[in-house]
Amino acid sequence: MEKVIEPKVLKGFRDIMSADEIMRREILDKIERVYRLSAFLPIDTPALEYSEILLGKGGGETEKQVFRFTDSGSRDVALRFDLTVPLARFTALHFASLTFPFKRYQIAKVWRGEKPQAGRFREFIQCDVDILGEDNALSDAEILLVIADALRELSLSFTVHVNSRSLFNRFLKSKGLSGKKDEILREIDKIAKTGEESVMQNLSVICSEKSAEALLDFITTDKNAAAEESISYLEEKIGEGETEEGKRLREVFAFLRAAGVEKHFVFDPSVARGLDYYTGIVFETFLDDAPDIGSVSSGGRYDNLCALYTKEKVSGVGASIGVDRLISAMEKLGKLSGRKGFSDVLIFRTEATDLNKAFAAAAAFRREGLSCEVYPSLKKMKSQYAYAESKGARWGATLEEDALSLKNLSTRETFPPLTFGECVKKIREER
Amino acid sequence: MEKVIEPKVLKGFRDIMSADEIMRREILDKIERVYRLSAFLPIDTPALEYSEILLGKGGGETEKQVFRFTDSGSRDVALRFDLTVPLARFTALHFASLTFPFKRYQIAKVWRGEKPQAGRFREFIQCDVDILGEDNALSDAEILLVIADALRELSLSFTVHVNSRSLFNRFLKSKGLSGKKDEILREIDKIAKTGEESVMQNLSVICSEKSAEALLDFITTDKNAAAEESISYLEEKIGEGETEEGKRLREVFAFLRAAGVEKHFVFDPSVARGLDYYTGIVFETFLDDAPDIGSVSSGGRYDNLCALYTKEKVSGVGASIGVDRLISAMEKLGKLSGRKGFSDVLIFRTEATDLNKAFAAAAAFRREGLSCEVYPSLKKMKSQYAYAESKGARWGATLEEDALSLKNLSTRETFPPLTFGECVKKIREER
Repeated sequence: MEKVIEPKVLKGFRDIMSADEIMRREILDKIERVYRLSAFLPIDTPALEYSEILLGKGGGETEKQVFRFTDSGSRDVALRFDLTVPLARFTALHFASLTFPFKRYQIAKVWRGEKPQAGRFREFIQCDVDILGEDNALSDAEILLVIADALRELSLSFTVHVNSRSLFNRFLKSKGLSGKKDEILREIDKIAKTGEESVMQNLSVICSEKSAEALLDFITTDKNAAAEESISYLEEKIGEGETEEGKRLREVFAFLRAAGVEKHFVFDPSVARGLDYYTGIVFETFLDDAPDIGSVSSGGRYDNLCALYTKEKVSGVGASIGVDRLISAMEKLGKLSGRKGFSDVLIFRTEATDLNKAFAAAAAFRREGLSCEVYPSLKKMKSQYAYAESKGARWGATLEEDALSLKNLSTRETFPPLTFGECVKKIREER
Repeated sequence: MEKVIEPKVLKGFRDIMSADEIMRREILDKIERVYRLSAFLPIDTPALEYSEILLGKGGGETEKQVFRFTDSGSRDVALRFDLTVPLARFTALHFASLTFPFKRYQIAKVWRGEKPQAGRFREFIQCDVDILGEDNALSDAEILLVIADALRELSLSFTVHVNSRSLFNRFLKSKGLSGKKDEILREIDKIAKTGEESVMQNLSVICSEKSAEALLDFITTDKNAAAEESISYLEEKIGEGETEEGKRLREVFAFLRAAGVEKHFVFDPSVARGLDYYTGIVFETFLDDAPDIGSVSSGGRYDNLCALYTKEKVSGVGASIGVDRLISAMEKLGKLSGRKGFSDVLIFRTEATDLNKAFAAAAAFRREGLSCEVYPSLKKMKSQYAYAESKGARWGATLEEDALSLKNLSTRETFPPLTFGECVKKIREER
């Protein structure tokens, strides 16, 4: 016999079995529904793009992680590693035909050759939502609200930690530290992981001990204070009176309060978000019951998103939900539905079954919007029950002369022969 | 000013603008709903796999078209070019944990470096549906029915041309032509494109003129005859009495008749389906009002799908819907919904608008399941109307003191100030 090829998937990649895929799709469908309720529209962009476009001026971690190759037409191409860069390219390319504000969502796979580790994959789904062409508190708040709505839809307890990159920049400037912005941000980004002491030590190397203390003091707020209070307190530390950035933040929090979702939001000046392109609000979202899983949604405001591809200036604000982390958290918390399939009815097959009638009955159930299938072969009832169980079927049916015997597969209750119409009614009632 | 990178997509790839993506998603959602009603379950597999696995023993057209490269870990990898090969690999890998019959669907992108031409792209979506682990007429019929149900759901008129590869093989054997099977099939596959005369000529080179005539005669049926009649007629030509393959076909057509969908199916012995792996029924589907667009769904039965990856024998039957062809046909036929967005209400912004109240009202509409957004900046009403139009919003609302003025944006009818509850009611009524 010929040798077979070993069936395996690439390191960091994975198959999703149907029960897991059903749950993933339930979550994605809920997120999408929320995005649509806020009038975001879907677009699609290619998985593969010119490397030059995806990597821009390149350099850094991203470039090392990207799946890049030369195609058969000698083009230097790569798989997209996020949905933000393709959005920027898309917006630049179609600028003239887009109506602004351009509110789009995209729920799609991205690929990164990261070192695989628990809960990290080289192929994963991002759920991105962005508003382009607006620079105001209303749009900032709308992005925060849509993320909160999505997580509420998933019945999760969560807290969104909001900061203003620009307020922080103003503080750095007031302390004469603007030149060391990137280094400082990189350190502060580590605070949740490595702790205050280690960050303090590293900051003291970057700037003076006094500055390091001031920095740590700035990013540490009274957790019990209202956002507005903390914002004013920071403005005092900056010492320039009320600031434009503080005003923007206060407006954002006022919107969130008006919508009745303020309990999900805290002002947290320690949120740094390493990515260079953020220029206004930034945020990270943690699950109250699974904080160790890390941020499940983050984002912020960026100026001039499309600068690499067009001279048109397009500012925007956006967020992304990382659905894989969310699923592993929901699994831990027992918040997944556990749904195994969509079957309402499995029609059993016995020696007596008229298969043509069974096939017709299945078609009739489907026309009533009920999911149905006929067990295709003459196996023992035990196998047929096991099959029904594996598909999560709720009802078993056996064809009688012009009637159907129903069995509720979870309660094991059986019913005397019913007409087709009576069956449909019963199944709908107990759906 | 720095030079920008030209924003462009790769040849054969494309962006999908939101209006088109909405329509594509409507179609995919309908197809998926039908697949689920027949109790098929979704799985997901990686876009990227080992080349050895995707290409198997390789050779042929496929190998030339595949996007293949060496990843940073020196692995020879490729983007999947269909969903059937990954299904075979998936089934072999997870064989022990699957419950059979294994009925799965997968709606996902595949990539082929084909020469781009009208309606052909290098990245496109396939909607696959397969039943593995069953070899009987019921499963054959179930696949045919689910395809018919999907196309009916899309309000299309169509005809599925069904043949049996194995019946044809038996005919070849009876004429002593089995050895030339592949060449003959390849010729017959061209008949719709090049016409009978050209095929006859080529067949006469492959075998004797007499055999060529017999072949053409075999694949040409009386279009008005019932399937059963044609099948018996072909069995007469084979001259071995009733055949196993003829019996299977008759059973399949009986099932389709029982389900009341027989009018969508014809028996057509000229359907060859070039692909080697088909061994039983094969079929192609044409739209009655757009036959020139080619087959929009095809498939068939294959034995031993997973032979490359496991010694377990898994037979199956499956089909695929090519959604891109379908969309271009539906566009021609005016069968696309033309939906531009999901907005139920756009809240206009005027000088008088209390933005906090507007933001809160939008949140409240969404909680009622109505899609809503606030126009974020103070632009002229003309721009705001143009925006509403671009999103397909049905209602415009202006905030008054504790009330909302509604305007039906299609009829231009305006209503006196209504309470929030009254607005929700009106919008729901006219949805």
